[in-house]
Amino acid sequence: MNIKITGTGSFIPSTVEKNEDFYNHEFLNADGSKINSSNEIIVDKFKAITGIQERRYIKNELLNSDIAFYAAELAIADAKIDKETLDYIIVAHNYGDVKYNTEQSDTVPSIASRVKHLLQIKNPKCVGYDLLFGCPGWIEGVIQANAFIKAGIAKRCLVIGAETLSRVVDKHDRDSMIYSDGAGAVIVEETNEDGGIVTHETATFALDEAHFIYFGETNNPENTSQRRYIKMYGRKIYEFALTNVPLALKACLDKSGYSISDVKKILIHQANEKMDEAIVKRFYKLYKTEMPEGIMPMIINTLGNSSVATVPTLYDLILKGELENQEINKGDIILFASVGAGMNINAIVYKY
Amino acid sequence: MNIKITGTGSFIPSTVEKNEDFYNHEFLNADGSKINSSNEIIVDKFKAITGIQERRYIKNELLNSDIAFYAAELAIADAKIDKETLDYIIVAHNYGDVKYNTEQSDTVPSIASRVKHLLQIKNPKCVGYDLLFGCPGWIEGVIQANAFIKAGIAKRCLVIGAETLSRVVDKHDRDSMIYSDGAGAVIVEETNEDGGIVTHETATFALDEAHFIYFGETNNPENTSQRRYIKMYGRKIYEFALTNVPLALKACLDKSGYSISDVKKILIHQANEKMDEAIVKRFYKLYKTEMPEGIMPMIINTLGNSSVATVPTLYDLILKGELENQEINKGDIILFASVGAGMNINAIVYKY
Repeated sequence: MNIKITGTGSFIPSTVEKNEDFYNHEFLNADGSKINSSNEIIVDKFKAITGIQERRYIKNELLNSDIAFYAAELAIADAKIDKETLDYIIVAHNYGDVKYNTEQSDTVPSIASRVKHLLQIKNPKCVGYDLLFGCPGWIEGVIQANAFIKAGIAKRCLVIGAETLSRVVDKHDRDSMIYSDGAGAVIVEETNEDGGIVTHETATFALDEAHFIYFGETNNPENTSQRRYIKMYGRKIYEFALTNVPLALKACLDKSGYSISDVKKILIHQANEKMDEAIVKRFYKLYKTEMPEGIMPMIINTLGNSSVATVPTLYDLILKGELENQEINKGDIILFASVGAGMNINAIVYKY
Repeated sequence: MNIKITGTGSFIPSTVEKNEDFYNHEFLNADGSKINSSNEIIVDKFKAITGIQERRYIKNELLNSDIAFYAAELAIADAKIDKETLDYIIVAHNYGDVKYNTEQSDTVPSIASRVKHLLQIKNPKCVGYDLLFGCPGWIEGVIQANAFIKAGIAKRCLVIGAETLSRVVDKHDRDSMIYSDGAGAVIVEETNEDGGIVTHETATFALDEAHFIYFGETNNPENTSQRRYIKMYGRKIYEFALTNVPLALKACLDKSGYSISDVKKILIHQANEKMDEAIVKRFYKLYKTEMPEGIMPMIINTLGNSSVATVPTLYDLILKGELENQEINKGDIILFASVGAGMNINAIVYKY
């Protein structure tokens, strides 16, 4: 018995927010002081580091649960399954539903219950729950689905990663340009086919790192509201990720029995282009080898960092032939990997 | 190999909010209209139905993650384990950390990461995540821990239920008197001892029921803020629970091979005394037998409904000998059961 992803779907929001759209923002340092550069220079520097030139926001009338549902519908259709046969709906997110122009996260009922409602699934034995695990939440959802199938309490699971970071950004923070909205979904199920999930690895670093990504006040000192936004210590995260993610990837790959030359693709959380490249280069360095060209498909350039949604979206776009010069073929060994708030790191070695 | 709860802990907040403390509230109907009764009569009726005469609120300076940590520390000490040997920290909640006098739920990093940080656990292989599943979240966390152990990816898990509903109540809503704060925690682990988790059952009803418990605006029509609060359709929940919870309990018990006369205790989510009694009575009726006296220990009278925290708190108080005329003895068959937002229902047959 193997456990495989048998269908994928993703939702790319329709509103394109270009880097130039940030030219009129008043960016401030975390201490509220002015930044001694023009916005053009700030945006250029941002682009050089993160690789992001535009990102996607959902329409004002939509919610995170809506786009989770859109991605789920596509994954169910792609897997050609009867939705009533799903044993689990696992939704990874971090901020729930945040209505446009409001402050509060709405997580009651769970996003999974909302998606199940929107899918109009009748079967009460299809259990829906939400998983909060930072950006690595979708990969962790796949790992949990895998465990439920191994434990004999599920055969078929829908695992969704959906986030609308546009609803929790501080416009006075340069980092706001990183964040994007998106949703990706897959069907994970028991199968007699060859391949599937080979090994996985997860770690939570919370001793010193718990608050590297946090909920904080605006950089604008004139705004005295208590409203908080997504915030991060970019430099600390960069150093943390470069130290720990390559080791986690190596542990996962070594456990799988496959060698570094077997790896055909690394689908890494689209956090920041320079950081992702540095992580993967260091991973190859651990095997005293060079990073092969095209091993690490990137979509951050046009889709930004949509948290839990980046990896399933990337996977879906490759399988649907929507990324130039990128494909995954039967038997290919691929690595899924993520790092994010918690700080959490995870990886899966997967045989397509 | 069996999977057992080897340690328990709970945190009872120090601030007692008595029914009389609500006498000066301006209660309104959901449509904003005045209620044609004095507050004394409203409170008396409330007490007659729910059984609640007082509830507990945490101190203003505390957060949900703090009380989750307090309960966790006690469970770890009770199980006499080294905290560094934990494979998972699973925290069930629904609203994250809400600071006193603020509106936003803070869930980044996850409450599990915060608890791990507060526990000062170094081991990165101890994975912390949050589970959103309405009031049945803690029982579901135990079911997930059980699955991880069965799947071979964990041996020892900390499962916490923690909620601070005092931070999300609408003072103009009579239902606000139901809600309370609290935290309970257990260690679930692989053991060679007799007993443990025998069977479990979970269901999500989302077709018509998804929004029976929801996030809604204040009953006060003069308040035009967009702030939302915990809200419910009490009558619909009552009918739903009475129809579906007894059947779920029966399915779980029948699967276990034990008979109704083997059941020594039913630890049911402390939602509402009258509803809980009606559920358990109907459960016994399914076996054409009467509900035995004392089978269903209740703490709602003084502790209110603290969501995910009620069941682990109840279990902990019984084991610690803090509930009069209530005890659980070696070999006893007990049932854990819950119903709540989602709408989710779950149950575990457990041999102590």
